Amino acid sequence: MPYHLLTEDKVVPFLASRPELGHIFTSFANLEVKEIGDGNLNFVYFVTDRDEPSRTVVMKQAVPYVRVVGESWPLTLERTRIEVLALRRQREICPRLVPEVYLYDPEMCVVVMQNLDRHKVVRGEIIRGVRFPRLVDDLTTFLARTLFYTSDFYLDGATKKQMVGEFLSPELCRITEDLVFTDPFEENATNSPNPALTAAELAALRGDAPLKCAAAEMKHKFMTQAEALIHGDFHLGSYMANQEETFIIDPEFAFVGPMGFDVGKTIGNLLLAYLSQDYHRRQAGQDPRPFQSWLLDSAAAVWTGFARKFEALWAEHMDRHDAAYWAFPDGERAAAAWRAAFLDRVFHDALGYAGCVMVRRTLGLAKVADIAAIPELEQRAALDRKALAIARRLLVERDRLASIEDAMAVVTAVAPCR
Amino acid sequence: MPYHLLTEDKVVPFLASRPELGHIFTSFANLEVKEIGDGNLNFVYFVTDRDEPSRTVVMKQAVPYVRVVGESWPLTLERTRIEVLALRRQREICPRLVPEVYLYDPEMCVVVMQNLDRHKVVRGEIIRGVRFPRLVDDLTTFLARTLFYTSDFYLDGATKKQMVGEFLSPELCRITEDLVFTDPFEENATNSPNPALTAAELAALRGDAPLKCAAAEMKHKFMTQAEALIHGDFHLGSYMANQEETFIIDPEFAFVGPMGFDVGKTIGNLLLAYLSQDYHRRQAGQDPRPFQSWLLDSAAAVWTGFARKFEALWAEHMDRHDAAYWAFPDGERAAAAWRAAFLDRVFHDALGYAGCVMVRRTLGLAKVADIAAIPELEQRAALDRKALAIARRLLVERDRLASIEDAMAVVTAVAPCR
Repeated sequence: MPYHLLTEDKVVPFLASRPELGHIFTSFANLEVKEIGDGNLNFVYFVTDRDEPSRTVVMKQAVPYVRVVGESWPLTLERTRIEVLALRRQREICPRLVPEVYLYDPEMCVVVMQNLDRHKVVRGEIIRGVRFPRLVDDLTTFLARTLFYTSDFYLDGATKKQMVGEFLSPELCRITEDLVFTDPFEENATNSPNPALTAAELAALRGDAPLKCAAAEMKHKFMTQAEALIHGDFHLGSYMANQEETFIIDPEFAFVGPMGFDVGKTIGNLLLAYLSQDYHRRQAGQDPRPFQSWLLDSAAAVWTGFARKFEALWAEHMDRHDAAYWAFPDGERAAAAWRAAFLDRVFHDALGYAGCVMVRRTLGLAKVADIAAIPELEQRAALDRKALAIARRLLVERDRLASIEDAMAVVTAVAPCR
Repeated sequence: MPYHLLTEDKVVPFLASRPELGHIFTSFANLEVKEIGDGNLNFVYFVTDRDEPSRTVVMKQAVPYVRVVGESWPLTLERTRIEVLALRRQREICPRLVPEVYLYDPEMCVVVMQNLDRHKVVRGEIIRGVRFPRLVDDLTTFLARTLFYTSDFYLDGATKKQMVGEFLSPELCRITEDLVFTDPFEENATNSPNPALTAAELAALRGDAPLKCAAAEMKHKFMTQAEALIHGDFHLGSYMANQEETFIIDPEFAFVGPMGFDVGKTIGNLLLAYLSQDYHRRQAGQDPRPFQSWLLDSAAAVWTGFARKFEALWAEHMDRHDAAYWAFPDGERAAAAWRAAFLDRVFHDALGYAGCVMVRRTLGLAKVADIAAIPELEQRAALDRKALAIARRLLVERDRLASIEDAMAVVTAVAPCR
């Protein structure tokens, strides 16, 4: 079927025509279709059998533009191919943490997948003060496993390089290159800073030479470092969870890139949540400190959990490629030193990426509701300034911060949990 | 024409059947065909019109194995595609330094190109004590221009990423990954060290934890850092020169990799030549110091020349992508600081790669004639030990060596020019 946009009334006939869905829906006679309005890029529908509500799917169709902006911002339909390829790969590696794809129609740019109807988007819940006891453990399992099993430490070179080719995605990468690493650091029409931030302070950031050099370096690494299949948009809005389960969704921006990016994006987003909760908990009449502490501990535990799990997988599979290389007296200790040195570099990268993401989410095009939804602009500006101060230090000092504790000390020096 | 191996008598009929060569040969009646025996990978023929000897080409045909080893070592015919793609790209960027491709037949894996019949392979000439006054200037022009114009500092992201895909070359990369970064550092059947080196000293190298960690890091960078289209085998045997001209040949190993690799490979090879000339000049009854000084100065000038020319190209094209990013008071100075920081990282990488190459050329499968052809094994072993000592320091200390002068001081501390 050549590409055309499915309107809401065409969704059921389309699904009914596809035998792949026979094991989901026993009948297509009484399906309910609900479009959800908040897809940034795509049209998204929930489809549920009114007679048996456990029979339900989510269907996404891409349009050749950014849906939330409109046809003035064209965007490749390739993103559906990338998303499906990534979902399937990630699910092989982490079956418990990634939704199942039931159907992919490349011509129609339609993907039908598991409906996570018992889960909620983590960002919104965290804004409301909800804790997810399994979140960090699940996120670090996803990070460690997807990044390890798609790296050169596990794959043979031919498989890895083929994967690089399959996931080449210039248009999607370009969005990150511009919106995360470039536009927020310069005078650019895509930016929309809080009006309560002064022109002088924005100009000071744009003229901050060490910050600019650091961000330029992180951008170049993002563009050139083909280490592992990264999710590419790994933030609180890409996690759907409840108290028992976590799912990672929306890997349209997946490509073979630097490991530190996914890790840093998580940390940066948790730090923004940490800052914002000083406001949200007080608004709710609560002491903000316990929930803020949980968020700060979570940010730190993303690093420690990821590093521990990644190291363990690597140590377990070290003989896959390098048995002879490390076969000497004390070779195990030397191999452990190499793993530590490598993870140390990923750590410094992650801090740099966390800094870039915090600047972007404060000044750039797509903000985080945690802070941007605060209606009192001066209160919001106070948080914006803290976010920018932390981001600057993480970026500029990233190679000098020796541990996650040092990095968290930077956060609490700028924004104490009190 | 489906692939089959051309024997020497089939070369002229093959060429005569190809209209692309009409501007080279006006007649195919009296061509002389000479096979040269020293192609490592391919069959190589010189074809010359006896009536007009200026009408001449070189023809290469790949076989599906490593020619010098035989059918027991299969090797992809893909290498001809990569070589031609790279030659054409490099010639666009450096027309004066790269031979012209007249004909490429992908099915037959045949490439016919400019015959550099007035030029000699630089390695052999340098062993004989010949200086090439233009060599370093030409090599650094090639390095700076090919690495800059294929990097993200010049290309747009879509073009760069398409190039990554076109040059994906797992089998050829694997050869370097094994022979340069792995096998020489472990007990491996491909190694063939000088028998005058003792088992104890070889075991000490294989058990040298800091060295092994450093080499592992350089290997991982080689496998993951897609910075620019690198030549991939940039050593003295890939340069053909005379006193007026230099040509760079044989880019079968080209792919999008780390900039420091080509630079470091040149430096490492010049340092091996430097060490060997203490022997060769004395054998010729000459004072070795002047020629050795030229080689040492050349090694240093590869770095300084490359860095100066790369920086100038980058500064010239800085506004291609980043005009707004650096548009602030003192922005030019900040941009220069970023360029310097970037080149500093390439410098440290280059020292690491130089070290790996020196270890490989001393212990591994393919050696350099400069040292390996010395018949007196003890004299050769003395040079081998110096090569290994320098290589170790370049690898282990690469991030602490702040300048090319510091690196050269390491060389002369181990092997004074006296």
